[in-house]
Amino acid sequence: MRLYDTQRSGNAWKVRLLASFIGQPLERRTLSIDKGDLETPEFRAIARFRQVPVIEMADGRTIAESAAILFFLAQGTDWWPKDPSEQADVLSWMSFEQSAHMHPLAQLRLHRALHPDWKVERGDVEEWERKANRALAVLDERLGQVEEGNWLATGSQPSIADIALYPYTRMARMGGIELDDKPNVLSWLKRIESLPGYSALFPGKAELNESVVES
Amino acid sequence: MRLYDTQRSGNAWKVRLLASFIGQPLERRTLSIDKGDLETPEFRAIARFRQVPVIEMADGRTIAESAAILFFLAQGTDWWPKDPSEQADVLSWMSFEQSAHMHPLAQLRLHRALHPDWKVERGDVEEWERKANRALAVLDERLGQVEEGNWLATGSQPSIADIALYPYTRMARMGGIELDDKPNVLSWLKRIESLPGYSALFPGKAELNESVVES
Repeated sequence: MRLYDTQRSGNAWKVRLLASFIGQPLERRTLSIDKGDLETPEFRAIARFRQVPVIEMADGRTIAESAAILFFLAQGTDWWPKDPSEQADVLSWMSFEQSAHMHPLAQLRLHRALHPDWKVERGDVEEWERKANRALAVLDERLGQVEEGNWLATGSQPSIADIALYPYTRMARMGGIELDDKPNVLSWLKRIESLPGYSALFPGKAELNESVVES
Repeated sequence: MRLYDTQRSGNAWKVRLLASFIGQPLERRTLSIDKGDLETPEFRAIARFRQVPVIEMADGRTIAESAAILFFLAQGTDWWPKDPSEQADVLSWMSFEQSAHMHPLAQLRLHRALHPDWKVERGDVEEWERKANRALAVLDERLGQVEEGNWLATGSQPSIADIALYPYTRMARMGGIELDDKPNVLSWLKRIESLPGYSALFPGKAELNESVVES
């Protein structure tokens, strides 16, 4: 199975995390937005939404969108619950991540860490900060309600909801959003990072993770 | 089963459409954003994301986020395919709708039809128009690739992906986005509207649908 990603995509990091947790080998094809790799006819033939991550299987089938890829890879594993009402709760958190959580955090990270020369309106930055803090407050509130050591949507067993919410929460500081007043979020991040198979954004390059993740 | 919605929510319309198609009775509780109904402690206890739609079951369990509700209600019906790779494709389109399609179309509808006195930046409007047109072009391209009479992700049987993409596409004109150059989208909208059980945004109030949907 092949994964098309970029070096710094948080959405692609989700897929690598799950693959690593469940022992699914991935052949990584890392593209560069700056070099125009996402606009080539070859990539557009694979990726109808022109975005990473996309996975491509041996028979040529492809799946786009991180939520759909996580769902697909998690089938038959403990990362996808068996109870339909728990399944709906997992998808509910994943939809919240895509519609309310990821966007403001990703925009702030682009603006403050990855493309500091990008011109943005002051009003936009304030709106992203407001939305990012609100989304993280919802996450922290939920994590404060579950039993100690439990996960977002599925009791004592982590699910793809935890994976989906992890990367952009972990990289919030790159966008200037502090997590110090979110104790439940901080301990949940640490618990994810202590799971067997956890893999950093830049595996084996501690100095790069520090600068990228903490800067 | 109870549905919390608002009169004009496109995301809640998705849930009513599926419920009507599959014959699931819903007790509708229609809230008013203007009256502050979404900010009451009662609603916040039900809706952790403080948004409609939310469904509440007889045993008190709740599900938030339209994608999760559609998934839950469609289990065991023809609206959710049995093949995991088709399931992933359905979720892929639903994720595209939440992350790329709905937002710009909903913002333009708010700006041009529902809250014309809302002050917005000219640059924001241009960005929404660019994103809305691009998302609709992706949808039109896909619908042009499937066999005649087939659906977005699941061949000859419609799925919750079709329902998820329908409302904000149907209401695009309210936001000033024309569909005349999207023939595949136009015929797909008509096919959805001819399915047994189809229900307009304002059932039984043709004049209101005209003014709301077409204005």
